[in-house]
Amino acid sequence: MNFEKFIRDIPDFPKPGIIFKDITPLLADPEAFKGVIDEMAEKVKDIEFDAILVPEARGFLFGSALAYKLGKKLVPVRKPGKLPYEVVEVSYALEYGEAKIQMHKDALEKGEKVLIVDDVLATGGTIKAIQTLVEKLEAEVSGIICLIELEFLNPREKLDNVRVESILKY
Amino acid sequence: MNFEKFIRDIPDFPKPGIIFKDITPLLADPEAFKGVIDEMAEKVKDIEFDAILVPEARGFLFGSALAYKLGKKLVPVRKPGKLPYEVVEVSYALEYGEAKIQMHKDALEKGEKVLIVDDVLATGGTIKAIQTLVEKLEAEVSGIICLIELEFLNPREKLDNVRVESILKY
Repeated sequence: MNFEKFIRDIPDFPKPGIIFKDITPLLADPEAFKGVIDEMAEKVKDIEFDAILVPEARGFLFGSALAYKLGKKLVPVRKPGKLPYEVVEVSYALEYGEAKIQMHKDALEKGEKVLIVDDVLATGGTIKAIQTLVEKLEAEVSGIICLIELEFLNPREKLDNVRVESILKY
Repeated sequence: MNFEKFIRDIPDFPKPGIIFKDITPLLADPEAFKGVIDEMAEKVKDIEFDAILVPEARGFLFGSALAYKLGKKLVPVRKPGKLPYEVVEVSYALEYGEAKIQMHKDALEKGEKVLIVDDVLATGGTIKAIQTLVEKLEAEVSGIICLIELEFLNPREKLDNVRVESILKY
């Protein structure tokens, strides 16, 4: 299926010079959305994992449907102040300043394997931080799958020890 | 299925005096999560709708899997600054101050019917605001389904012209 026609380019969002990949036309087309989830399932079928980790917020949209389809644990990774129970936290550098992400302390058991699901893989900075978060709980990232991979930002350089899959590449 | 045992009470979150219903244990149990999505599908089977609307961020976790299962359009409702294309916006009152929510202008066609899916139905204020947002696009909310309904906050008072379903009541 040609998913590319369901991705809309928005110039200068969120700031001048950036072309944002808008996924809402894809979400609005039930056949395309089902096609993406089914293709994600196909691409990860030989990766061993117990849990699907989803970064807030757009990761939730793909990972939740995939967890439902595959019968896997669903674990949200969120910004500070959102998760109500005890958390582990990681800080990571952004272009300007830094960001923090959190996961519940009891979200993963020692030795569990996880698949990270997100909409866009850009610099790989957030995914790398999630990997550190997972390792804090002595669990392991065995794969990453994203709808869109921005190859020109070289995300795989940061993620050289883990299997990376994507459906659309730019 | 007894879903109640997968909901964890967190006292004094996000502020003193509030008992927060933590849904992450339910997300972490694939059978319970599948059970909730399948029961949501069952409860809305006689409601007519073209699209599933999901409020950021926890609504994404349930509405995405339900949209996948039922083959419906998936439409995110977000806080300001998150949606990249042209938006419609509604402001609504909170306990202190006000909040704003947005949806893309082309998210719904005139006359379309929508189901709102969220995790918790509390005062009904956000859902009521989403209803106003939907009406701005000349579409119509034909139903609301939530995992948890906080009956003691009387959300149905605000939502008296629309079908409301929930799986757990407190």
